[in-house]
Amino acid sequence: MPDKHIVYHIPVCPFSQRLEILLALRGQEDAVEFRVVDITKPRDPELLAKTRGTTALPVLETPDGTILKESLVILRYLDEVIEGPSLRRSDPAEHAVESMLVAQEGPFTMAGYMFVMNRDPEQRGGHLEKLLNLYRSMDDFLKAHSSEGPFLFDSFGLAEAVFTPMFKRFWFLDYYEDFELPDTPDYARVRQWKEACMAHDATKQVSKEEIVKLYYDYALGAGNGALVEGRKVSSFAFDPPWQARPWPPKDKYSTSASDAELGLVA
Amino acid sequence: MPDKHIVYHIPVCPFSQRLEILLALRGQEDAVEFRVVDITKPRDPELLAKTRGTTALPVLETPDGTILKESLVILRYLDEVIEGPSLRRSDPAEHAVESMLVAQEGPFTMAGYMFVMNRDPEQRGGHLEKLLNLYRSMDDFLKAHSSEGPFLFDSFGLAEAVFTPMFKRFWFLDYYEDFELPDTPDYARVRQWKEACMAHDATKQVSKEEIVKLYYDYALGAGNGALVEGRKVSSFAFDPPWQARPWPPKDKYSTSASDAELGLVA
Repeated sequence: MPDKHIVYHIPVCPFSQRLEILLALRGQEDAVEFRVVDITKPRDPELLAKTRGTTALPVLETPDGTILKESLVILRYLDEVIEGPSLRRSDPAEHAVESMLVAQEGPFTMAGYMFVMNRDPEQRGGHLEKLLNLYRSMDDFLKAHSSEGPFLFDSFGLAEAVFTPMFKRFWFLDYYEDFELPDTPDYARVRQWKEACMAHDATKQVSKEEIVKLYYDYALGAGNGALVEGRKVSSFAFDPPWQARPWPPKDKYSTSASDAELGLVA
Repeated sequence: MPDKHIVYHIPVCPFSQRLEILLALRGQEDAVEFRVVDITKPRDPELLAKTRGTTALPVLETPDGTILKESLVILRYLDEVIEGPSLRRSDPAEHAVESMLVAQEGPFTMAGYMFVMNRDPEQRGGHLEKLLNLYRSMDDFLKAHSSEGPFLFDSFGLAEAVFTPMFKRFWFLDYYEDFELPDTPDYARVRQWKEACMAHDATKQVSKEEIVKLYYDYALGAGNGALVEGRKVSSFAFDPPWQARPWPPKDKYSTSASDAELGLVA
């Protein structure tokens, strides 16, 4: 590559962490320049022109100026152009198998985000059951294609890079919804996979504390940098840094912490 | 490949036509054995065991017995293993561009199917607007990445194989909803693309007459082989053959033709 690729992203975004995981696995962290976009402010007009009006992130700009969108498109692109062993399996049938697991990620992500954003205690059971169904479906898939584990194939690969950022975001469910995978055989294989994914050295870009603090507003039903009623600062604000803030209240259904209580006022 | 691949499919299914288009482009129609599944009957238990309970079609069985699901996963798999020039662009950035267009297919397909299945005349305008928005978004994409045309790149490729079966299914909108792409500049590029896709020799597996007759039940709101109230035979029935049946009534909102009127009684 003649020049650097540029990724425009939100630092804690799971779709962007996939790309960081790929680069970490290759030891190529410097092959891409990450430029931070503050989603609590209006979008830079120059970037908006490049993306032809869409605001979804991340987007990648190639050295020749082509704009690529869609996290999985960008991940597969970098997998082809960045030096080093590829994430995807080279065997076409094995690649098809990992792609089938990757295809389960959309509903899984949707279920987890709808669950954390839910504001109605009556709906809680339905969200929980939906997410557990998807975990069981992943368990079934992993048992059928990879009964031994821990990974789908012999090492951390494409499916792991796609799911791990979601497993880490779902710390918000552990914290705000007391979510735990049941300790029963129908979740054993997916639990083993999830734990191996989360423990892998290439996936340490975020911590539970960071996720829980930044995603507090999601737990109150406000996504994508939207402001919770009565608040002036988003929990995604860069300043004050999350390290300097207290942990938010765990109870999302009956309390709504103020900016001051969240440490968002400098 | 030591042996044949087997695809279990519904003959008129758009997700299956993608695979047929790939084989036709390569002159490899015999590389895959297609086995017909009658969705108006209970699923064969042996096939159900192979697919571990899911009933979505098509599924592909590799010579070594691996079961692959998801139309795009199967298409990309066959693109890698079937002899001949591949559908996908070999250049990674060009492949990413075609993959971005492919990512628009899900919402496009959903919009067209929801439109044809809609039973409420009051909702018609909303469905139409949604579909037109998606056509304009495709037009914008094609203008940005391929202003000349007719195809996204220099020949019929991956994105064309993905979309063409949907363009042909949407004959049901022309017939049952009097749908036409407006003759204005914001649809000119996508119209050119759509026409080139539909005219290509490798895409002649279905005709307008076949689609309109078989999908009549969709126009009455009954999908996937479900029976319309008062009817005993699905419009997807193999017998009598569609060639022997009259064209269904165009008016889907206030009439519901009987089995006899549809030529479904032998």
